[in-house]
Amino acid sequence: METTSKTETLKDLGEVGIIGFIQREVSPKLPSYIRKGIGDDCAVLETVGDRVLLVTTDTLIQGIHFTVKTLSPEALGWKALAVNVSDIAAMGGTPRTAFLSMGIRPETQISFMESFVAGFKALARKTNVVLAGGDTVESPSSAVITVTLLGDCKPENVVYRSGAMVGDDLWVTGPLGNAAGGLFLLQNKRVALISRYESLIRAHQKPMPPLEVGKELGERSLAHAMIDISDGIAKDLGHICEQSGVGAVLEGASIPVSHDLMDLAAEAGKNPLEWALHGGEDYELLFTASPADREKILSLTAKLSKIPATRIGTTSEQQGIWLETQKGKEPIRSGGYLHFSG
Amino acid sequence: METTSKTETLKDLGEVGIIGFIQREVSPKLPSYIRKGIGDDCAVLETVGDRVLLVTTDTLIQGIHFTVKTLSPEALGWKALAVNVSDIAAMGGTPRTAFLSMGIRPETQISFMESFVAGFKALARKTNVVLAGGDTVESPSSAVITVTLLGDCKPENVVYRSGAMVGDDLWVTGPLGNAAGGLFLLQNKRVALISRYESLIRAHQKPMPPLEVGKELGERSLAHAMIDISDGIAKDLGHICEQSGVGAVLEGASIPVSHDLMDLAAEAGKNPLEWALHGGEDYELLFTASPADREKILSLTAKLSKIPATRIGTTSEQQGIWLETQKGKEPIRSGGYLHFSG
Repeated sequence: METTSKTETLKDLGEVGIIGFIQREVSPKLPSYIRKGIGDDCAVLETVGDRVLLVTTDTLIQGIHFTVKTLSPEALGWKALAVNVSDIAAMGGTPRTAFLSMGIRPETQISFMESFVAGFKALARKTNVVLAGGDTVESPSSAVITVTLLGDCKPENVVYRSGAMVGDDLWVTGPLGNAAGGLFLLQNKRVALISRYESLIRAHQKPMPPLEVGKELGERSLAHAMIDISDGIAKDLGHICEQSGVGAVLEGASIPVSHDLMDLAAEAGKNPLEWALHGGEDYELLFTASPADREKILSLTAKLSKIPATRIGTTSEQQGIWLETQKGKEPIRSGGYLHFSG
Repeated sequence: METTSKTETLKDLGEVGIIGFIQREVSPKLPSYIRKGIGDDCAVLETVGDRVLLVTTDTLIQGIHFTVKTLSPEALGWKALAVNVSDIAAMGGTPRTAFLSMGIRPETQISFMESFVAGFKALARKTNVVLAGGDTVESPSSAVITVTLLGDCKPENVVYRSGAMVGDDLWVTGPLGNAAGGLFLLQNKRVALISRYESLIRAHQKPMPPLEVGKELGERSLAHAMIDISDGIAKDLGHICEQSGVGAVLEGASIPVSHDLMDLAAEAGKNPLEWALHGGEDYELLFTASPADREKILSLTAKLSKIPATRIGTTSEQQGIWLETQKGKEPIRSGGYLHFSG
């Protein structure tokens, strides 16, 4: 594809050309457990006897999840895989095999596809994910990307949303709200600020889910319940509480917020805590654990990431999610992004 | 959902309401090998030690694969699953677990979703497929449905596209072209004819892939190569020939065409063979087998379907796909539907 003109469109390449290009670029060599990848009616994978299979699927639609202005084609390729890797991380699993379904307009330039694939491939390499199949079809308007990702885990190491116990610590990886700050910058075209807040832009465009942290927390049986933060911690914590039958108290002062986000919030007259609680798309991990394991969790996460995990509250017998600040304790509004909420 | 007004939209139901409704309707009880279905970051499935896992994914986009005029919501639900079941059938496998991703406009009426789910569920029941996860998101315009289907098979029974040998018989299940005839009727609004040609309409809207035939052909090692007929036999046979390194000669007079299709073609001034060769969407099986197994294949397929499989030609050392008619032997134009072909 190096010789293609930048103005050629997918129409010139054709369906077979597109599929072949994606396969060659992303995963030219398949591991031996994949008996057949792209090119037959189904991919054929050997199963691993003593492990359970993890399956997740996520769809990104142009105009809903991203726009051309806020996400480059390369970032879109990265992010389409990242949102699924994040789900495998949140189970304590290892991602293995991806299936990519794309609906795109035939008038799309080939250079778009080249960049998309480069972004997808970059994260696939980092996470040892192999592309083994998919479907590429025309879309009349919005681009639509669905990635299905298979992974695996030892059954005893899977971390569900339902395992939280009353009196658990609440933990998060990374700082929260950076992705929301980055999206704010991109949507409001604060061009002058974009280079200054590169970390926020990157958090929105190319999130890197803490895969190793998720896996180690599962393998060492440190996390009781875990979820990835995709819709904002307020909403995602709600899922853990609901499925575990517990409530939770968040300590406002403990929510980890980056210096960059605080600077931007001050400059833009925004509340960084709002971004951290309700912004979504952080693709960090939220988990609960026994207070007896605090030291272990701190040293493990400090070893695996630049920033150790942060303890942000506790689970409680009292139902509901509460935010504790200097002003007192109040029920948190259930925020986060809800599809179909009008 | 029985008490909902027919004019309520998905906006009224919300994302969580939609997912819950789909799960309850399609697969209210999960088999024990599914440790977790919808409701966590990933579905968690136990793997089956001595079998290989089959994975297929297909996307249907409004305006490309279907329109509101040619496919009812119920038929769309059925067909979204059927096109994937067909891929599992073409490997000789057993379908097991489906993941449904939907992008739909929030203004969509809830009754659309109820009908869609009823259609999906009807085929899921017939094929023992369990819904175990998915993603439901807003789409700004066209509805987009991606189904990922997992199945399994004993490794020695998988039938690839690449196994055809020179001198094999070519076989197809069912009559061909019915789906194309049905689409013609629907697109041309031949309303008066629709009730008369119900079998053609059904072939387009609710194809029933010959799952048992595919499975038995694999288990008895009767099929050397197999593919499902989704893009028209001319194009799909091309995949077998290319991957097996053989050519093929189709006997025009042997291509199975239904009486209904012949009647419609006569009435509409069309060539039924064109529909049979290039129409696509038949979701029947095309396979190659040893001439020594003719009797076995006829009796097996007669036992499993109303119509036994039909022998329609042979594979050849000479490359290319040829059509033999009374007029002689000529190379077949490569037809079928090609995405991005302009």
